[in-house]
This record gives sequence, C-alpha cells and structure tokens, in this order.
Amino acid sequence: MSYQGRLGERRIIEIIIELQEKMRGNPLPFGDDVSAIRLGKGRLAVLKCDMLVGLTDVPSGMSLWQASRKAVVASVSDLAAKGVQPKAILVSLGLPKGLSEGEVREIGSGLNSGAREYSAFVLGGDINESKDLSIDVFAFGICKEKDLVRRDSSRAGDIVAVTGSFGLTGLGLRIIKENLAVPKMLRDEATSAVYMPKARLVEGLALARRHLIDSSIDSSDGLAWSLHELAKAGAVGFEIDRIPIHSGVNGFALESGLDPLDLAFYSGEEYELVVTMRLDNFERAKRAVSSLVAIGRVVSDSGKIILKSDGKVHEIASRGYEHFSENL
Amino acid sequence: MSYQGRLGERRIIEIIIELQEKMRGNPLPFGDDVSAIRLGKGRLAVLKCDMLVGLTDVPSGMSLWQASRKAVVASVSDLAAKGVQPKAILVSLGLPKGLSEGEVREIGSGLNSGAREYSAFVLGGDINESKDLSIDVFAFGICKEKDLVRRDSSRAGDIVAVTGSFGLTGLGLRIIKENLAVPKMLRDEATSAVYMPKARLVEGLALARRHLIDSSIDSSDGLAWSLHELAKAGAVGFEIDRIPIHSGVNGFALESGLDPLDLAFYSGEEYELVVTMRLDNFERAKRAVSSLVAIGRVVSDSGKIILKSDGKVHEIASRGYEHFSENL
Repeated sequence: MSYQGRLGERRIIEIIIELQEKMRGNPLPFGDDVSAIRLGKGRLAVLKCDMLVGLTDVPSGMSLWQASRKAVVASVSDLAAKGVQPKAILVSLGLPKGLSEGEVREIGSGLNSGAREYSAFVLGGDINESKDLSIDVFAFGICKEKDLVRRDSSRAGDIVAVTGSFGLTGLGLRIIKENLAVPKMLRDEATSAVYMPKARLVEGLALARRHLIDSSIDSSDGLAWSLHELAKAGAVGFEIDRIPIHSGVNGFALESGLDPLDLAFYSGEEYELVVTMRLDNFERAKRAVSSLVAIGRVVSDSGKIILKSDGKVHEIASRGYEHFSENL
Repeated sequence: MSYQGRLGERRIIEIIIELQEKMRGNPLPFGDDVSAIRLGKGRLAVLKCDMLVGLTDVPSGMSLWQASRKAVVASVSDLAAKGVQPKAILVSLGLPKGLSEGEVREIGSGLNSGAREYSAFVLGGDINESKDLSIDVFAFGICKEKDLVRRDSSRAGDIVAVTGSFGLTGLGLRIIKENLAVPKMLRDEATSAVYMPKARLVEGLALARRHLIDSSIDSSDGLAWSLHELAKAGAVGFEIDRIPIHSGVNGFALESGLDPLDLAFYSGEEYELVVTMRLDNFERAKRAVSSLVAIGRVVSDSGKIILKSDGKVHEIASRGYEHFSENL
C-alpha cells in the first residue's frame, strides 16, 4: 500500500518514535512537550527543539526579526508549560541565498530578543544554506524532577484552567490571510498576537514551583488539539463549560457571522497554557496567576472532550494544525 | 553598500554572534565546537546543534537512512572533539511533502542507528513540512569542566596530531560528483567514507579523560580549515611536516594526476580529530589511541599554517567549506 503524499504529520511522528530504542528509566515519555534526562540529585536537564519553517510558519507581513523572535518564543512556551526556566538557546539556521546584511541583522537581533525576554541566552548555533528559511531553536533548562509538570498526570475530578483568553490569534491569522475588514484597534491587537506572541513563562513557573497543577500543555497547536493531547496522555476526558474568548473578537465574530468558538478552538500559534489542578488549589493558583480562568473539569471518560454551552452538548473534534496531510 | 548575495557563511555567523548578548561567566566562548553551561559542582552541560540540509549536505547516492545517520554522527563528532559522551539526541526534521512510509522509516531508523552507535538515545524532536530535506540534530552531554578540551588552549611547543589518515572522503566525494574512474575496492572504501562516516568518540574520550591533550577540533570542515580555526582560537601557528594520507588514495592520486594534499586538506566531511598536546604526552596518547599520528608542532607565529615537505615550505590557505559565498 502506498502512503505517498498521504502520510500526516502525526503518523510520521508515530513511525519515527516507534523506531527509536527507548532509554530505560527515561523520566518523560516521548510525546510530552519536552524531553528530559536525569542529572542526579533529583535534577533534570530539560530539552526542547522546535523548528520554524518559512513555508508554513511565517504568515505574510511577519518580519524576519519577528519570525526569529517567534521561533525562540515557541520553544520557551514548551518549557513554560513544564514549569522550567530556559537557560540556554541554540539555533540552527537554514538560510536562503542572497540575504542582505540588514536581513541577517534582523535574524540575529530577533533571536537575541526572544531569548532575553525570558532571561535565557543564545549560546551557539549552526548555519546552512537552504531553499527555504528555517529557524530551529533548541532550548535547555534545568529543574527539580518533582517540580516538572507532566502532560500525563491529569486526575479525574480536577478542574481544567487556562492562562488567558483565546481567539485573538485566530482572528489575526484570518485578517492576514483573508484580508478581513476589522476595526483598526482590534486589527492591530489581533495581528500583534500573531506577529509578537508571548510565552506564559512567568505563569508556568509560578504554578509549577508552588506545586499547584497536576498536568499542563501549551496551546500552540490550537486549544482543541491541546485538550485532546492532554486527555490522551492522562487517559481522561474533559467537560468544558466555558471558554474565555477575547471580548473584542467575540463581539466582532458575532457581528460578522464568524464562529467565535471556531476561532478559539482551532487556531494554533496561541501560546496560552492549559492546566489541570485540584479544585482546592484554584484560589491559590488564581492569586499566583491572575489571568487564570477555570474552563471545566476532568472526567474519567478517556479521550472525550465535551463542550456544554447554552444547554447543548457538543463534542470537540480533535483537529488542529496538520501541515502534511491533505485532509485537515 | 549592498551585500546582497555576497555574504559568506562566516560573515553571517559573525554578524549573528555580534548581536547576541553574552552570558557572564560562560565557560566556552562562541566559536568553539560546542556550547556549554555550568551545572554546579564542576560539571558542565554540553550542547551542540548541527543541521544537515539536503541541498548541500547529501551527496548523490546517499540514502535517507545514511543521511539521517550522518546527521547524528556530525553532532557526535563535535562532542567527541571536546571529550564529551553524548547522552541525548533531539532531532528537528524538515520534510518535503510526499514521503512514503518506507522513506520515513529510513529516516527514523538512521537517526536511531547514529545515536545508538555512540551509546546515545534519541529522546525527542520536532517535524515540519519544508521544501527541502533538513535534519537538525541537537546533542547533549555532561562532563567535568576540567575534562573539557577547548579549542583555544593550544600552547607553543606542543605537537599537533590527528586521529587517522586523510583523503579518502575527498576522493569519495570526487568519485560521486565527477564519476571518477577508480578501482572497485578503493571506490567502495572511498564512497563508504562519504556515506557512512564515523565519529572519533572513543578516541576523543580516551584522550580527554586522561588529560593528554591541550586543544582539539574535528576536521569536518576540512583539515586546512580546522588547523586555521584551532590556530586562530589559540593565537598560535602550526608547522606541519607530514600529513597521513590514506595509502590507496595517495597511490591513485599520483597515478592520475590528482594532488593528494589537496584531497587531504580541503575535503571536509572527514571526521578525524585534530589535537595539540605536550610532547611528553605523545607516547601515552599513542598507547590510548593507536591511530594517532603526529603531524607537526605549535609555534607562536599566530595564524600561520606552514607545510614543510620535500625541503619546500608551503603556506596552507584558509579555505574549506563555504556554501554561501560565490567566491570559494
């Protein structure tokens, strides 16, 4: 049977993971947001790589400075979800021929900004000629193993919470791609969310170090996808009863016939954290992270993500970003 | 002044490094083979990323399995030069659309083989759609700071040595690119050197852990380039009086009007180690690494690389691999 052209990204990942010999006593399984290796005395080295590719990850109008900064932010976001401070960043660049000195300066400066905003340093890298721009960021941090927030440790009865509202990035991407007519202030805010994303590092560290959360993931592949990944890893389900949608986005969507829930669930490139925690911990967590919003609860019905809204029950489809497959 | 199309790889690296804020007390400067960060108690985390790009780094006839394995070997080689055992490998893949399941399996299996040959494990990665194949490998290891072999610590009076003979890869690349007519056995050996390179990890660890060498670099950008980098970093020069050239290559080159020194000095993709050491240490080093060959000595004349052969003195030009610049 030929899979030519039809292998999706997730299937490719499965095949490749299946072929790797597994390290015994690996503190984190394949498929969590980061990789980890024990350093002794209860400490872990935490490692993450995340490649930004010009072809798929750089929306029109994004500068090289912004793309380079964003590449770093995406890796920082994964460490943030685990409660790990990034220390060192390495960057491999695939650069098309013919860049000007100014363009190279944008890239160098964007990488530095992305790292320094989160108190990390770019320590090294590699550079290559390639047809398309690629910026591959490797982030390294250290944490106590007991502080690491895993993806697979949700517990039935927990509440599910997020660190902020959704939909702004989704609207921004549609403004950029479809040239949607949107009032200037909202347009600026939405496109900024795309061009200048922020990682929720302070929030991730605050929740992890106080041991307030049971599991966590970032929402970079879309909220729906993140909920499904978190549910799958923890062998639980979620009943969601509200999604905080950015108020400007919600108002605009309702006026213009867009579905605000669609913007919130299926956008991606939105770097909020999705966490689960004991109900008892919510008040303390809210004091530590004021943007935190409870959105539902963890149930034992494995893999099911249900949205209850207006007295109706919807099942949230497990789709997100998939670049490879034709069938999104 | 426009640099459009004329910025070489080294100049791009300079610009980008210049724009990075420097971490205080960084144990290794930018420009060494790896990056490092202190873990406390005299230990270092050692980090390396190295991207293989289909366009420039995969010679014709190299399988996806071989390319994937080679991508890992190239990063391992940099850790080998520093005397560091790689523990964990992460891999970011940029994959063209339309790969078959068999091709994806080749990639997964090649990555695993590259890691396991050197007792490391692939712990994670990232996958993306891209126009051209790229395989970016991050290698992570731990060492004692006092065991790390730097690039900048050659001392005048040291001898210079290499871990093996040169020229086979250079011949192999010419066989592949120019379809050079070469006797079958030599052809097989030379093309194997290209398709299945080996990192000198055992040798690097043996020399570093016995504290037998003062400085080290691998020869992946070509022997000439490596000598110049090592000299520049240490603010020394080298007087080279012999280069071990693979005997079959030497014989074939002389018969067919090729310059064996050219094959040895300017090939790249050859993963020997180039080290400097006290003369006193050479015998012990040779017992630890039997393939070790002394090729010359370190002099205080900074940056000068001289080859003395047949009573004549040649200056070894500082050229190697540069993909970007038109002017090689």
